[in-house]
Amino acid sequence: MSDPLRPSTSIPAEAADLLTRVRATPPLTHCITNTVVTGFTANVLLAVGASPAMVDIVGEAGVFAGLASGLLINTGTPNPEQRAASLEAAAGADSAGTPWVLDPVAVGVLPVRTALAGELLRLRPTAVRGNPSEILALAGAGSGGRGVDALDSPDSALDAARSLADRWGCVVAVSGPTDLITDGVRVVSIGNGDTLLTRITGGGCALGAVMAAFLGAGRAVGADALHAVAAATAVYTIAAEHAARVVDGPGSFAVALLDALAGVDPVDVVAEARIAEMRTRTEAGAR
Amino acid sequence: MSDPLRPSTSIPAEAADLLTRVRATPPLTHCITNTVVTGFTANVLLAVGASPAMVDIVGEAGVFAGLASGLLINTGTPNPEQRAASLEAAAGADSAGTPWVLDPVAVGVLPVRTALAGELLRLRPTAVRGNPSEILALAGAGSGGRGVDALDSPDSALDAARSLADRWGCVVAVSGPTDLITDGVRVVSIGNGDTLLTRITGGGCALGAVMAAFLGAGRAVGADALHAVAAATAVYTIAAEHAARVVDGPGSFAVALLDALAGVDPVDVVAEARIAEMRTRTEAGAR
Amino acid sequence: MSDPLRPSTSIPAEAADLLTRVRATPPLTHCITNTVVTGFTANVLLAVGASPAMVDIVGEAGVFAGLASGLLINTGTPNPEQRAASLEAAAGADSAGTPWVLDPVAVGVLPVRTALAGELLRLRPTAVRGNPSEILALAGAGSGGRGVDALDSPDSALDAARSLADRWGCVVAVSGPTDLITDGVRVVSIGNGDTLLTRITGGGCALGAVMAAFLGAGRAVGADALHAVAAATAVYTIAAEHAARVVDGPGSFAVALLDALAGVDPVDVVAEARIAEMRTRTEAGAR
Repeated sequence: MSDPLRPSTSIPAEAADLLTRVRATPPLTHCITNTVVTGFTANVLLAVGASPAMVDIVGEAGVFAGLASGLLINTGTPNPEQRAASLEAAAGADSAGTPWVLDPVAVGVLPVRTALAGELLRLRPTAVRGNPSEILALAGAGSGGRGVDALDSPDSALDAARSLADRWGCVVAVSGPTDLITDGVRVVSIGNGDTLLTRITGGGCALGAVMAAFLGAGRAVGADALHAVAAATAVYTIAAEHAARVVDGPGSFAVALLDALAGVDPVDVVAEARIAEMRTRTEAGAR
Repeated sequence: MSDPLRPSTSIPAEAADLLTRVRATPPLTHCITNTVVTGFTANVLLAVGASPAMVDIVGEAGVFAGLASGLLINTGTPNPEQRAASLEAAAGADSAGTPWVLDPVAVGVLPVRTALAGELLRLRPTAVRGNPSEILALAGAGSGGRGVDALDSPDSALDAARSLADRWGCVVAVSGPTDLITDGVRVVSIGNGDTLLTRITGGGCALGAVMAAFLGAGRAVGADALHAVAAATAVYTIAAEHAARVVDGPGSFAVALLDALAGVDPVDVVAEARIAEMRTRTEAGAR
Repeated sequence: MSDPLRPSTSIPAEAADLLTRVRATPPLTHCITNTVVTGFTANVLLAVGASPAMVDIVGEAGVFAGLASGLLINTGTPNPEQRAASLEAAAGADSAGTPWVLDPVAVGVLPVRTALAGELLRLRPTAVRGNPSEILALAGAGSGGRGVDALDSPDSALDAARSLADRWGCVVAVSGPTDLITDGVRVVSIGNGDTLLTRITGGGCALGAVMAAFLGAGRAVGADALHAVAAATAVYTIAAEHAARVVDGPGSFAVALLDALAGVDPVDVVAEARIAEMRTRTEAGAR
């Protein structure tokens, strides 16, 4: 049903360009995220050049989503205040045209966040980011995972991702050794990264925030959302490779990742990105 | 009233074995813990090889405690949602037979958590972990401490620990330069560790989570709860010794502790553990 | 309207003395702060020698503020429980004479915290710490900032700071490349620090906690509040300079800052502080 993946040169160039833009004009990046990773997420955003703001209360989240360049909603620890603030923020982002990312942490197994993620999907996220189990659960399929772990493979989740993207008109990113990103028609794969990202808390959650920052920066220049999400992924996973080279374990990796995000050169992004893309036959009317 | 402490060789061997098991089959470790240390605690669990999940809301905590291998409830920042979720989780763990650890942070001085800890005790924790002041307060004695600091010594808390263990049928671990762990009859002392553990936040709280992980791994092989708690303590404090050798201060210690937890070899645990045990006369009916 | 700034030698000496006192008798420092920086703030307090306690729930915050040596209230993520606990704590501190610091994060733009900060001001903080935009907003002026960023300069905020200090009888500290601290009459400037402090989350928030610790230690020896706030700033920003010398980026800077806070010698504080003071004409009745 689809063409083979072909190496992309345009997306790495766009990633380098967006990284430069993020650093030149820090996108105000609004995060409603779980209490485990708030500090690390803010530090990741600061390191890459963005300006984080964690505004997660009712009466402020909606207003702020309208002012921000990009928004992340992560369902990792969805207490009642955050649930209400998330819905307020998503509605505010939708009204203002602020691009936003939904990271449906641990949906499927846990009932409260699963219901919340369903409501949030209806508020039209620009992108959804998750591990294979989460994407399968969100699409109404899958083995359910066991919380924050992914028991399914990215490939097995690709059909679910495309179906989610089609149905909700969003970009869907599936994390894994190879990250897959789709808008339902196009599929981009990114082969950068390091397994140490799975040995620190927030390794995936913080990438969702970087996606929101790059979507914000990209919107200002009319960038394609699929490409902005791919750009964020490429920059983040290339920085992870740089960090992994100099460390002794997961503790020093988390520290080195922040240093690498601050130091990564746009030229390196172009040189090191392992990005391929394909176009499914659907677009050609073959479905 | 009791025999002198004798060096143990069986507990270090069991600690090495449980560490290997944790890494081979990561126990899903459910934590309801304070907002100060959630990130560090998750990173400690990931580093040692366990799989953390911070599920602290009503409607999910009970379900998840039934799925998890082990559960930690820490009363450090017990907002109303966490209090209700803690009771739900403890009940869920009790029903499902999931071993769980209560870390009654700052009980005694502060009324809300003191009442909560009393309720939680009735839900039959597998183990209680605290500093001497907390253990004395929980046993209805002691000077009260002054929050998170321990003003009392482990030895002064040992009688309180034994009485708590007797009354509630749990293991009680008292932290200090020498850690003491008792089930009311047996007492295990562990002489590993480093004072830098008291110079970082979460140094003790994260150990509670490691105990939950080791109890989970231990349950699968029928390990004794006292030994599983001792094993967690030995692995953690030996890693702390490794970390302390290579650092310049508390910031780099916290980072190096994560690296050391990921890198510590089971062979080192056997070689370096300073564990002694005694059996009180009670068991022989001498009380 | 005011005398030029003159180098101060007495404040550096007092800073060195207070640092020694903090380490000798760790002030119990009560923090109600935002969920992004709780862990880092606690680690900063531990590193400098203070004893942190994050007590942010209703029913405990008021009691604990009476027991603590110093209190920080930071409005970064003011959920309903924290808002109520903040008012309870501020009232408790006021009753007990506990010095306390208000850090009005992102006031001006966001309505809920702006109202809260107004209420807290009426409960008489000993000191207020903010970036220029926050201080201008709190004084009812300014461009509003855009959340946690400061769009205004410290100098532009100095008049607002003096007016706030006059009106509420508190010390006001305005952060920036040069920190300015005033009690309405006197102005102290501190030229230490490093821009990396703005590239990590909590760089400013944690300083508010150190101010609370130094106010607590200073109160015990009858130190002037303006000088205690200046001492905290000098110690913290000198440690930041030490840390900046040895790092590769923001990740390693945050770690090295903790090491530097633990290692900074009082002698270095005296030698390296760049502190100047002036007295405005107001005091001489010239206004």
